[in-house]
Amino acid sequence: MLATPAQQLGVELRLLAEAADSAAAQVIPDTVVGDYRDLPTLRAFARGLDAVTFDHEHVPSEHLQALAADGVPARPGPHALLYAQDKLAMRRRLAADPADGGIGVPCPAFAEVAGPSEVAALADQTGWPVVLKTARGGYDGKGVWKVEGPEDPALAAALQVAADTGVRLLAEEYVDFARELSALAVRSPSGQAVAYPVVQSVQRDGICHEVVAPAPGLTDEQALAAQRIALTIARDLDVTGILAVELFETREGDVLVNELAMRPHNTGHWSIEGAVTSQFENHVRAVLDLPLGSPRPRQPWTVMVNLLGRDLPELHSAYRHVFARDPRLKVHLYGKAVRPGRKIGHVTAYGPDLEQVVLRARHAAAYLVGEIDE
Amino acid sequence: MLATPAQQLGVELRLLAEAADSAAAQVIPDTVVGDYRDLPTLRAFARGLDAVTFDHEHVPSEHLQALAADGVPARPGPHALLYAQDKLAMRRRLAADPADGGIGVPCPAFAEVAGPSEVAALADQTGWPVVLKTARGGYDGKGVWKVEGPEDPALAAALQVAADTGVRLLAEEYVDFARELSALAVRSPSGQAVAYPVVQSVQRDGICHEVVAPAPGLTDEQALAAQRIALTIARDLDVTGILAVELFETREGDVLVNELAMRPHNTGHWSIEGAVTSQFENHVRAVLDLPLGSPRPRQPWTVMVNLLGRDLPELHSAYRHVFARDPRLKVHLYGKAVRPGRKIGHVTAYGPDLEQVVLRARHAAAYLVGEIDE
Repeated sequence: MLATPAQQLGVELRLLAEAADSAAAQVIPDTVVGDYRDLPTLRAFARGLDAVTFDHEHVPSEHLQALAADGVPARPGPHALLYAQDKLAMRRRLAADPADGGIGVPCPAFAEVAGPSEVAALADQTGWPVVLKTARGGYDGKGVWKVEGPEDPALAAALQVAADTGVRLLAEEYVDFARELSALAVRSPSGQAVAYPVVQSVQRDGICHEVVAPAPGLTDEQALAAQRIALTIARDLDVTGILAVELFETREGDVLVNELAMRPHNTGHWSIEGAVTSQFENHVRAVLDLPLGSPRPRQPWTVMVNLLGRDLPELHSAYRHVFARDPRLKVHLYGKAVRPGRKIGHVTAYGPDLEQVVLRARHAAAYLVGEIDE
Repeated sequence: MLATPAQQLGVELRLLAEAADSAAAQVIPDTVVGDYRDLPTLRAFARGLDAVTFDHEHVPSEHLQALAADGVPARPGPHALLYAQDKLAMRRRLAADPADGGIGVPCPAFAEVAGPSEVAALADQTGWPVVLKTARGGYDGKGVWKVEGPEDPALAAALQVAADTGVRLLAEEYVDFARELSALAVRSPSGQAVAYPVVQSVQRDGICHEVVAPAPGLTDEQALAAQRIALTIARDLDVTGILAVELFETREGDVLVNELAMRPHNTGHWSIEGAVTSQFENHVRAVLDLPLGSPRPRQPWTVMVNLLGRDLPELHSAYRHVFARDPRLKVHLYGKAVRPGRKIGHVTAYGPDLEQVVLRARHAAAYLVGEIDE
């Protein structure tokens, strides 16, 4: 999805892909197959490029520093990316007071933990349950445990993973949120930044399922507060490109930062049709330090629903039904083989009536993956 | 531009390109370089495909019939494509009465001509000037001569080209039009068809320069009449995919058919951002016989201006200025080397105020190609 606006702007792309049949390799002819964790591969790949960017945050910092020494800047740079790679570094920097070099945005209570007593110490402040997370490597609900009490087997399981892999753990206050929100900002190396409308995100089993843009019922003050958090983090961490700030909205209407991502994000896919400039185009513009495009919505409501693989081996035969039913529907398939639970695409609907737009998007997604048959 | 919606829908593409560095080869990894006029090349290329389509109409009919015999249908098929390849066949079919197997839509007066006396015979009916055209092979103003009178050297030049190449010539009434319009329809093999809003097209030196969607000041009756012409031709010629009908609007407010094209057309580029479903996505849907998407506009006015190469060797360095000036601007560069007069991209602006939208699009286009410097 990043390739489309880059190619539209006449930007030449080279892709480092893990496999020749990866989704991006289907749209980028100049593809090198290799392992981004191997520095010689990465350096050979990057030779002659103006800049590199990513669709995940797991490229090792030292590799990105080596590329920068070769004259190929990573955008975002490793000094920013650290805070999307390491949840403990992120929590410490975000929660600390600006007077202490922190950013001072609202976060759940947290602590680094190495054993049961440290988890219990956090629970003494926050009450049970608490949430354990690996500092690095988790995504889409992996590397996260909800622990109901000191005897919950999830606690021992998390500690065992940490012992086995050497990864650090953090424990966080469990936030009994009213809903999840996401605030996307995009920032260029020159320091220009824009914020997208704050959206509502609904998760299923730890995976983003549905996004409504803008978040219904959010007051202007709440929206502004969330956008300010995203813009402040983007500035203070010197982010280039998209910064996605996943937020909890508490039952009192406050927001707390849940996670950060520094790449085009699932909660921004609505912007392809829904905003004047998509998150993908603005990411490309930011990486090239071009002036950013308007992030404004093009209509009152846009709803995106993810397509997660189920039993159907392919989704194309469902096109006839969903397109005949809804001539305004937009469908994106990523060219990935269907596997149960895998994100293989998304649908987008937009219009003036929220209820109708939600129904259209949900119906199409459910039909396409085979959850319903009419 | 056709690749983008195909890839978005998860449709696998194979490209037959004339050169490895052609614009489409930059976005379609599975590219074969070869000559579409060579039947063995074409058959080897098409083996295993579900269907083939084109970005121009010049593939020989007999080659397309051979592909169909191999089980790979061309969409549009050769029986339809003939009328976009051969202006004389087109005029005869369009102008003839339905009772005689024609379509009966308004056309300029015309005649096949082989010498000066036949040209003069048409001019006796219509008056001078008359327009001479080669029946096949012309585009963007090439293969067209305006002849002011029997002594005009353009007449001898046209007849000489016909004598040298063996191409047939037609002479047409010169239409002193008020403006040019374009009516795009898209039709699927199942017979579903939709019509885009009728647009105004402004030519410069025989090349499309600017398109305003919808055509300002057109009455509902005029728009409907033009859409009906496009839909009737699409049905009667059994067109699959986009049919572009270029029209003259006379000073009396009537419309006459000028040219036909059976492919996504320059006068439909506005639809990428301007319509719910772009002409490119609907062409792909039609080729696959999927239900068509809504052709409705997404806002009151959309203006597209072509970028024709001038002296600047590249346009990217102008991005900073045009994007900073207009955060809502959309720019498309086709990845072609800049040559004077070559179509290398286009810009699109949209919004509620026609005058503003026109100014934004014209300014950006003029700045990008180096016609103005502020």
